[in-house]
Amino acid sequence: MPDDGFHVFDTTLRDGAQREGITLTVADKIAIARLLDAYGVGFIEGGWPGANPKDTEFFERASRELALKHARLTAFGATRRPGVRAADDPQVAALRDSGAPVVTLVAKSDGRHVERALRTTGEENLAMIADTVAHLRAHGQRVFVDCEHFFDGHLYDPGYATAVVRTAAEAGADVVVLCDTNGGMLPERIGRIVAEVRAATGARVGIHAQDDSGCAVANTLAAVDAGATHVQCTANGYGERVGNADLFSVVAALALKHGRDVLPAGCLAETTRVSQAIAELVNIAPATHQPYVGVSAFAHKAGLHASAIKVDPDLYQHIDPALVGNDMRMLVSDMAGRASVELKAKELGVDLGGDRELLGRVVDRVKRMEQDGYSFEAADASLELLLRAELGRPARYFTAESWRVITERRADGGGITEATVKLDVGGDRVIATAEGNGPVNALDRALRAAAEGAHPALSGFELTDYKVRILEGASGTDAITRILITFGDGRGEWTTVGVGENVIDASWIALEQAFTYGLLRGERPEG
Amino acid sequence: MPDDGFHVFDTTLRDGAQREGITLTVADKIAIARLLDAYGVGFIEGGWPGANPKDTEFFERASRELALKHARLTAFGATRRPGVRAADDPQVAALRDSGAPVVTLVAKSDGRHVERALRTTGEENLAMIADTVAHLRAHGQRVFVDCEHFFDGHLYDPGYATAVVRTAAEAGADVVVLCDTNGGMLPERIGRIVAEVRAATGARVGIHAQDDSGCAVANTLAAVDAGATHVQCTANGYGERVGNADLFSVVAALALKHGRDVLPAGCLAETTRVSQAIAELVNIAPATHQPYVGVSAFAHKAGLHASAIKVDPDLYQHIDPALVGNDMRMLVSDMAGRASVELKAKELGVDLGGDRELLGRVVDRVKRMEQDGYSFEAADASLELLLRAELGRPARYFTAESWRVITERRADGGGITEATVKLDVGGDRVIATAEGNGPVNALDRALRAAAEGAHPALSGFELTDYKVRILEGASGTDAITRILITFGDGRGEWTTVGVGENVIDASWIALEQAFTYGLLRGERPEG
Repeated sequence: MPDDGFHVFDTTLRDGAQREGITLTVADKIAIARLLDAYGVGFIEGGWPGANPKDTEFFERASRELALKHARLTAFGATRRPGVRAADDPQVAALRDSGAPVVTLVAKSDGRHVERALRTTGEENLAMIADTVAHLRAHGQRVFVDCEHFFDGHLYDPGYATAVVRTAAEAGADVVVLCDTNGGMLPERIGRIVAEVRAATGARVGIHAQDDSGCAVANTLAAVDAGATHVQCTANGYGERVGNADLFSVVAALALKHGRDVLPAGCLAETTRVSQAIAELVNIAPATHQPYVGVSAFAHKAGLHASAIKVDPDLYQHIDPALVGNDMRMLVSDMAGRASVELKAKELGVDLGGDRELLGRVVDRVKRMEQDGYSFEAADASLELLLRAELGRPARYFTAESWRVITERRADGGGITEATVKLDVGGDRVIATAEGNGPVNALDRALRAAAEGAHPALSGFELTDYKVRILEGASGTDAITRILITFGDGRGEWTTVGVGENVIDASWIALEQAFTYGLLRGERPEG
Repeated sequence: MPDDGFHVFDTTLRDGAQREGITLTVADKIAIARLLDAYGVGFIEGGWPGANPKDTEFFERASRELALKHARLTAFGATRRPGVRAADDPQVAALRDSGAPVVTLVAKSDGRHVERALRTTGEENLAMIADTVAHLRAHGQRVFVDCEHFFDGHLYDPGYATAVVRTAAEAGADVVVLCDTNGGMLPERIGRIVAEVRAATGARVGIHAQDDSGCAVANTLAAVDAGATHVQCTANGYGERVGNADLFSVVAALALKHGRDVLPAGCLAETTRVSQAIAELVNIAPATHQPYVGVSAFAHKAGLHASAIKVDPDLYQHIDPALVGNDMRMLVSDMAGRASVELKAKELGVDLGGDRELLGRVVDRVKRMEQDGYSFEAADASLELLLRAELGRPARYFTAESWRVITERRADGGGITEATVKLDVGGDRVIATAEGNGPVNALDRALRAAAEGAHPALSGFELTDYKVRILEGASGTDAITRILITFGDGRGEWTTVGVGENVIDASWIALEQAFTYGLLRGERPEG
């Protein structure tokens, strides 16, 4: 674990969730927290307990379900209201009782916001900060103070902004975080003000930068250059308006350009994987051109320098992409394709036997399918079925002759979805019909009903995840749908992929493969 | 027109076109050049005449078709080959004969690249630069020199890199552009090296920053702080790998934060429109979270601040969005309070009339629906329909009695999807059936077939986007589906939301609302 000397503080679950288009369930938040912890961040800000029932539930579940290895869970909340004691403020009580070992308190530090939004005096605002920090510290919690609108406030009235920092630090805040809440600052000014504040107060300071000027990463690094030792970021820069400083760009710059080991050993190479996994969880397509982690981040258009890049890749890349778990890509070369398929086959225990002709055929088939919209990155089970088919050892437990789904909304407001499948199961023709709460559920049930007699293991399979991604076509109507389906059998999970113009067709492909793979898997000794 | 003291140099047509996924026709390039000229950039780099037939054609057509008001067209090319005279190099001749008043020459400035890629000596590289610059100057062209890999080269051998700058300037280059070609630099270092080079050579320097570290905008501004007076950018930051410095973020920062009028009067307010128009031309969806110009760039979500934002928008935004032709937007989310809904209603032109009881009812309804999985932040049209219904003025052009969708995969491998809808349209019962390539498409067509007789405007509606999000239900087995549908009619777009256990049900809700809203919209004078 990194020592306390430098804090990587993630606020994806609180500030990141403010991004337009993101709505996280409690289960999403738990899953993201696990990824961030495995990535090695020091602090995970989980939300505002007491202000929002979902956040309250998250802290309850987190204390039971999350066994964090690296990170400490952090609750976010405000200083007490004007005119009451911190001990008597129910909002402060919710923070105290959240079970979080660390609390981040947001405080006003711009005199205009104190007057116009908080509607109190500068003096009372300082008292609110001192009282709330002291109260939580007395109850054993570690406290960080986020000074909202700090830089705007410092430009307006440096004396008052500085007094806020001093007050927070003297009351026992471990870190006073200077926030560029409106995101309007540029790095030179950030660096200058951070240095001034440190010199004037001696406080330990952190930085929280919004990206409205496109400079959040640079602003964060400028603050670190000026002595800040705590950086607040969000995965992929998700956040309100334009977003926040991107955790992955900040961590990679600190590690690879500043030479600071801000993550535990081995974690930096997980950067690309963690970035993409979080994008999947929040259901935002991974940004193809994101620094360090984007699929295009190390993609070279073959041209003038193609051969030179092959000989001296370090002359044409700012870092070795493997350091952040990414890969160089030559846009006209199939070398990467071959190597990755070979690697993947080995990983799946499918022996391509060093047969270059076979390997070439598999690579061509994968490339064609990826052009059609398939993505095998998350669908190992589909890739293994494809590899087995190319090897002449296809897995086949049943053959679908035809199927049909009817979804109906009746005049009385009631509705029904019903699926019929016709299968050949070991030479027998079987027809089964089932109802479901939606077309995929009805197909799932009908498929089981038809094949379960011959393959009783199916009764133990359960659909655990279903993801839909619409891939851009020329216009909305000829878009392509990609379905990822995950099934489990109590001992493990597997994911398959289906693609088609029709969401039901694509779901059927993934479903059929999921059943086939589950049966194949059940035959292996290791299960 | 801005004087020659500061150059805004756009290279969208050359460097921007290297972005993975962009392929420009000559007509695209002409159209983009017109937009950039109207926006007021000083230089438009059009491509590499002679190296690429499309670029040669562009320069031919540009000299006939483009009547540039602000910009000067610039040709890109390399210094002469080693061992020949510039006057005898056909590549240099193509630049000389391109008709472009300005040429940007790319030159090596990193000793390692000179040896390994160019395979010549440092001495000969300097001669190539001096000879080529002097030759083009003698033929009346203005010359800028791009020093490729300059910052890496300067770290490796500052003496040689500085000699390259001095040589170019002494041979007659007006500007020597320092390029962070691999994009690995951070602002502090850029600023320091730019200042050193200026002090050592007295040359006029420019900056060209790639975005691999997520700092291209900040690096560009750091160079300007250090005395660079020429910035090379691309529209929306398009470019190789991660991309280049975004023209719009750089220009807006220079104008609004540095107080430099780098564009002709009145042009800055065109920023959002030009950004979106170029995105359309290159066929990349406008980035919703792009600084200054993104649809989310001034979208406020937090319910906490809504009441304060209403009173003092300038306290919550780094600039007035109107300065760059963008708009403030309030998002309604599960964090939203009364003030957000009231603001949103005003924005939508729905008057809640200060009626606190009504407002409370709407807020409660929105919150309940959001708990059920609805999300209105991207679905203004659904929210407006809901507000109208609560006001007792529901929009209703047809009433659905029932519908049914059948999706079928036949034994011969063929398939069909067919939808039937039964509607009441102005008192008439209408039944229509249509086929589609998927269930939503079939429902869309059947709904049109049934209602188009009474509402001919429907024929102009087109589905432009369809998004599916699976939300985890309380128990995991009963997942909820949220559908967002966007329709357009050639004059604008609107988005609706539907939620349900069944993906078809949810799609139907969104579809019905999309048709209703489109008809409502068509009745308004402003369309």
